[in-house]
This record gives sequence, structure tokens and C-alpha cells, in this order.
Amino acid sequence: MSKPQHIEPRTLKGFRDYPPEVMIPRERLMETARRVYRSYGYAPIDTPALEYLEILTGKGSDETDKQLYRFKDHGGRDVGLRFDLTVPLARFAAQYAQQLGLPFKRYHIAPVWRGENTQRGRYREFVQCDFDTVGVTGVASDIEMVLVIHDLLLAVGFERFTIRVNHRGVLNGLLETLGLSDRSTEVLRALDKLTKMGADKVRAELASTAGASDEQAGKLLEFAAVTGSADEVLTAIAPLVAGSERGEASVGRLREVLAGVGAAGASLDRVRIDPSIARGLDYYTGLVLETTLDDLPEIGSVASGGRYDDLAGLYTKQALPGIGASLGVDRLLAAMEELGLVGDSKTPADALVVYFAEDRLGDYLKLAASLRAAGVGAELYPEAKKVGAQLKYADKKGFRLAVIAGPDEFERGECQIKVLATGESVTVSLAEAPAAAQRLL
Amino acid sequence: MSKPQHIEPRTLKGFRDYPPEVMIPRERLMETARRVYRSYGYAPIDTPALEYLEILTGKGSDETDKQLYRFKDHGGRDVGLRFDLTVPLARFAAQYAQQLGLPFKRYHIAPVWRGENTQRGRYREFVQCDFDTVGVTGVASDIEMVLVIHDLLLAVGFERFTIRVNHRGVLNGLLETLGLSDRSTEVLRALDKLTKMGADKVRAELASTAGASDEQAGKLLEFAAVTGSADEVLTAIAPLVAGSERGEASVGRLREVLAGVGAAGASLDRVRIDPSIARGLDYYTGLVLETTLDDLPEIGSVASGGRYDDLAGLYTKQALPGIGASLGVDRLLAAMEELGLVGDSKTPADALVVYFAEDRLGDYLKLAASLRAAGVGAELYPEAKKVGAQLKYADKKGFRLAVIAGPDEFERGECQIKVLATGESVTVSLAEAPAAAQRLL
Repeated sequence: MSKPQHIEPRTLKGFRDYPPEVMIPRERLMETARRVYRSYGYAPIDTPALEYLEILTGKGSDETDKQLYRFKDHGGRDVGLRFDLTVPLARFAAQYAQQLGLPFKRYHIAPVWRGENTQRGRYREFVQCDFDTVGVTGVASDIEMVLVIHDLLLAVGFERFTIRVNHRGVLNGLLETLGLSDRSTEVLRALDKLTKMGADKVRAELASTAGASDEQAGKLLEFAAVTGSADEVLTAIAPLVAGSERGEASVGRLREVLAGVGAAGASLDRVRIDPSIARGLDYYTGLVLETTLDDLPEIGSVASGGRYDDLAGLYTKQALPGIGASLGVDRLLAAMEELGLVGDSKTPADALVVYFAEDRLGDYLKLAASLRAAGVGAELYPEAKKVGAQLKYADKKGFRLAVIAGPDEFERGECQIKVLATGESVTVSLAEAPAAAQRLL
Repeated sequence: MSKPQHIEPRTLKGFRDYPPEVMIPRERLMETARRVYRSYGYAPIDTPALEYLEILTGKGSDETDKQLYRFKDHGGRDVGLRFDLTVPLARFAAQYAQQLGLPFKRYHIAPVWRGENTQRGRYREFVQCDFDTVGVTGVASDIEMVLVIHDLLLAVGFERFTIRVNHRGVLNGLLETLGLSDRSTEVLRALDKLTKMGADKVRAELASTAGASDEQAGKLLEFAAVTGSADEVLTAIAPLVAGSERGEASVGRLREVLAGVGAAGASLDRVRIDPSIARGLDYYTGLVLETTLDDLPEIGSVASGGRYDDLAGLYTKQALPGIGASLGVDRLLAAMEELGLVGDSKTPADALVVYFAEDRLGDYLKLAASLRAAGVGAELYPEAKKVGAQLKYADKKGFRLAVIAGPDEFERGECQIKVLATGESVTVSLAEAPAAAQRLL
């Protein structure tokens, strides 16, 4: 007989497994996001991974249409895997508008799928982490979007970050004063490339695609290059949009946002007005923002979003304005690793209870249970083995404590607790072990 | 021009949305599961929703093969959506066996997909919540499986439940003494129907499919019908398997499991030996268990699992024995609702900060921030509106507190905190508001 053929264990191209050392900080990040979202009253929802294809197509861009995982299900229906969490929110809000009531504040943390070109280093499955407020247009929600991101990054452990805010109406106001209102898409597309391509190339593109004169292009570039504190930027921008009602109102709105963020106690040092931020050419209509880490600006925005006029126009005639943002989970985790904000532990438990006296299993079980009851995560090694081998296991997995007792210790009602990083070790009574472990963590 | 056509917002048959009032208790249940799993040293992993089709087919039953969502991806590969979390664990363990090291303890909470017949009330997308220990055969892991389920159900809020334990070797021992070892599959299949069909029909099936004589069928039914305390059951079973080495060892193993569960401090009143439990005809080889809620036995097992000899035989020649169980998330949530263990709140925040003095937005923002800083979830109503409308919103959403202040209160440095369930209301200084809200929750 021939040897049994094994199927090669492997993942699909563009997909990845998350082993414990990667998944532990991911779960912690998502728990922090949930905690902060909840503290502002955002409620969780979930929606199916699979949707009718017609729900998904036409809402995104041609690019997302091309990247859709689509097929016929068992009933012959055309279906697809969701490529973002905004389309499902739009469908959900349209479907349940009556029951939900407005304002509706939700967060949604879930995987999405895009058949992307993996040569760009992108994955075909990734988690999105969105929060949105649907049904409101007031400035309080604008302010809240900034505050949520501010609180969230602090809660995750970042101190040095900048939330870059802009308002789509500011640029539109400038376009009005320049007489270029009907070229807004072309202008936005060109200005969006400023960081990547530099001023000269953008000036050329403004001329060729938007028909901007030298003077018009100059004003646009001057506008996009304004820097300084939030106050300085607003002061520099105000004259550029003077005379445009929309432009002046938008500058006023940005002032209110800054005032509100400050009133809530958030640090205004972390908030900048950045006229170069456009985001989502057709989608966003008001406030837009991006967030960069001061120590790692090159990884791009780690939290982005904005205000939109019409979330669900494809599915309902009810106008559903809203505002929301998305956390860049993978970028944040990469940054946390780079900045040493995550460990490399492969276990979520604090202590390994070493099991070497085979006939004392009951004592070990009791000891481990007493640690857990005190909130100290405790793994009991599952088989009686030499202490050395188990300490090696504890090191490899990243336990912080090893709790060691043999027949003699159990007779004396004692155990030894060893801090694995330092080798420090204390002997305590079994009754005191949970408190001692808490102290040593 | 004709009116714009809207796409009807709807979900696929067999799929469902989770609105906030459903999702809030779901998230809480999964957080509890994570906390308990972690406290025993189980580490989180995640794997792709999509796998190579050949990884998925052939491992489950013909039924799961038929239910697979399968298609060709953009690269022409045959792919499928995972139908459980055990196949991905097997693939994962085989793929990384070297790096992981054994024992490997993981939990995995994620959706799976099956194109089931929805007439049975089943959904085509549901969440599984598994924990497994791979690479060990000792009794400590058997004990731990029982303890994890015990701790988890208590942590969720259930007091009255029964973990029904059996060992596959006990029945096999009996089959040995009866000379029916080569009919174990047929016998198991028949006994598995005992609760549903009753003794007479099972006796007939035992005769027709397993060729059991009246006497043999009688012994098998006697065995499956044994009841009483765990000790009584073991005492009744022991003579039935006497002479079979495997049978005697299995009875001994069950005794060790009971002793260990008791040593760890878990209530033995909640653990029964139930010889009728078989589970997974070809898969499980040792301890098996099911868990029923004493007040709702009809919903079936809410946590089930067992020990297996060979997790990943399809993908590697390395023998990977293990043990694990799965939480029945949907059944548990249905039971929690039935037993009044979940509320119907649509918000995760505790307090609504009512916003009615439009020009005091900064004060409201500061008040809401002070509540959050004290750990009191606080939603600021996003637009200035009449107090009555906002209190209706607070009621509808299920907030517990409303925090109310107008220009006069802000002048005096005060606010009013109203307990929405009772109508009770206190007036406190703004500085004292967070502590007062904590007290009232």
C-alpha cells in the first residue's frame, strides 16, 4: 500500500493566520475600541458577511466592484462578501429606519474582503473598526468624532499623535471665489496627490485637468500649503474664502469644532486644521479628518472619517446624513509593535502552575483555582513532567510567573512563586499565594 | 424623468442582522467567554474565513460538504467559506506544529457558514466559540474542560446547569464484553436516538442494524439508562464492563475526572456521568460531554465537546491528540433571554446628557467628559432639542440615567441626575456629578 497522501496545510494567497502573539494585542486593541465607543453611547451591531450582490455593487467604486468576492449561492442567488462596513450600515439603516429611531449611533468591528492585488502588500481579508452617528447634522457630532479618536488613541497607549481636520466646504468656498466650482472633483483629485507628487506636478495637473490658470493654481496651492497652529491656519484661510457663504460658514464650523474639543478637556496640541485633507471625493460633504502618529508619520492615517449628507440613497428615499470614522487596525498594531507598546507573549495567562508530582493533581488544581479566583490567570501544565522542561515552556510562552510546589511543599502548605523575567523567587503559604502573585505581577 | 429606483434593502435568506439590543448581550457573552478561556491560559487565534476547498472538503461529513459555500476566486482557485473552527484548527496546528510547541491551547471565536436548510430554523451564518488543548492525553485536560465550562456558565449568570460526562471507552468496553466491538458505529447511532425515539424503537434498530440479540440489546439499554449521582452511575457501570481492560480504564478515568473537578472546588452537584452521551461518531475517542440548563433542558446542550486522538491526520503525519469543547452561543443567548438574564437596552452607555441650551455646548461637553472619566458611559444628545423629546429618546434606548442642566443650573454650577426607571432625581454640583452618577447606577 502507498503512504497516505496529506493535503498540504496552507492559507490562500493574500490571507493570513493570526497566531496568539499577534492575536493577543489585536484583541486588546479591539476591546479598547469597544470600551471607548461604548462610553460615548455607540452601540454594537453586526450584519452578514454575505449580502445580495446588488446591495454591494454600484455603491463602491469600480475598483471595489472588481475586487468583490462574488458567486451564486445554493439557491442560485447572486451574492458577494462585503468589502466594507459602510454599505452594510447604509442597507441596515434604510431597512430598519423606523424601528431604530434617530439619532442612531453604532459601532461595527468585523472582517471585510477584497480581492486586491497582493503585490501592494495588502491583505484580501482585514478587519474594519467603524463608528458612525446617523441622522444628525449638528456640530456636536463633529466634535465628538474628534474626541472619540483622541480618547481611543490615548487609551491604546499613544501620547504623540495629530488629528488633522478639514472641512470640505472650505475648499468649495475657495473654488467659488476662484470661479472653479464645476471643477471640484478634478481639483480635489490633484490636491490629494500633493504629499506624494509635490507642488510642481500638482500645478501641472491642475492646469491640464481642471483648466486652472497660473494664478488660480497658485491660490489653490497656497491654500493647501497653509500650516501652523489651528488658529493660525484658520486666520490664513479666512481671507481666501471671504465672500463665499459656504466657505465662511465652514471656517466658522471648524472654529466651533476646536472650541468644543477644548471645552471637553482634550489637548488642542493634538488637533490641527489641515486644508490639504480631502478624503472620499464624492462621499464626504462636511468635516473630514485623518490622524497621524507623530513618531511614525510614514505609516499614514490611523483613524479617518468625515461627515456625509446621504448615507443610504441607493436603498431609501429618506435622507440619512451622518458622520463617522474608521480605525486603521492593522496600521495601529504595526505602530504599536514598532513603538514597543505590545509584548510578544503567546499566552494571556499570568502564571504557569508547574505540575510535577503526579499524585498531587488535586492539590495543583486547587492551587490554580485559587489564583484564578483572585483574578490571576493561571494555566496548569497538563501533564506531570520535569520542572526544567516546564520552566522552558513558561519562558517560551511568555508567562510572567511560575508557581512551583512538590510533595514537601504541599505537606508544609507552601509554594514557591518565581518571577520569570528576574529569577526572583518567594516562598509563601498556599493561602497567601494568590495575594503574593498579585503583588508580583 | 422617472423616479430613482431604489434597491430593496434586505438580507439573504438564512442570514440575519444583529441590532444593538441583540448585539449588546452577545458581546457581553463573548467577552465573558474570552475572560474565562484566558484565565486558564487558552490563547486567541484567528484564521481566514476563506480556505482552499481541498482543506475543507473530506474532513467534515457528506452533509457539511453539501452545505459548503464554494466558488472560484479571482485567481481561479477553488475556495470555500469555513463551516466550523475545528478544520481551521487542524490545518493551523499541522502548518505551524514546529513553532507552536505543545501543549498548544487556543480559543477561537468567529463566524462560520453552512448553506443549511433554513426550514429547520437554522441560520446559514453563526458564531462558534471553541477552546481546545492540543498535544496532550493526560487526565488534567479532561478535568480542565469540565472546569472551564463550569466557570463560564457561572460567570455568565447561570446557577442551575448539569455537565453530563461520559467516556467513549466505557461503551466500547461494554461492546467488548458483549462481543459487539465491530458494530460500535451502528450501536452508537442507535443509542444516540434514545431521547428522541424511546427504548422500543432503539431496541428494534439495534437488532436490525447491529444484529444485537434481545439480551445484548437489553444490556445496552440497561447501560444507557443508568442514572443517579456520579458515584452511583460509576458503581452501576463497573460490573457491565468488568473484564474489558479498556472499559475498566475508562471507568477509572471518569472517577479521576470527578475527583479532580471536586478538588478544584467546583460543585459536583453540577456534574453527572451519563452513559447515553456519544457525540461525534467517528471523531471523539475519550471523554465526551454535554451541558444542559436545568430550567431549560429542551433547548439541548449549551456546551459540548470531547477528547480526540488525531486532530490533523488529513494534513500531517504527526499525531496530534487533543481535547476541546464549543459553547452554543445562540442557545445560551436564547436561554439568557428566556430566564431574564439580559436586559433589552439598545445602548451600552449608562447616562444620556440632555442638550437643550444651544449656546452651552462647551459646558455639556465638559460634563459628559467628566462622567466618562469616572467610568460612567455618557452619550451627549447631538442636537439642542426640547428636554421632553430627549427623555423619550432616553427611555426608548434604555439609558438608566438622564443628566439635565440648563443655563440657570450651569450658572449655579449644578445639574440634575434623574433615574429613569424610578423617576427619582437628585440635584448635585457639577463636580460631584460623576460620583453621584456612580452611586445611582
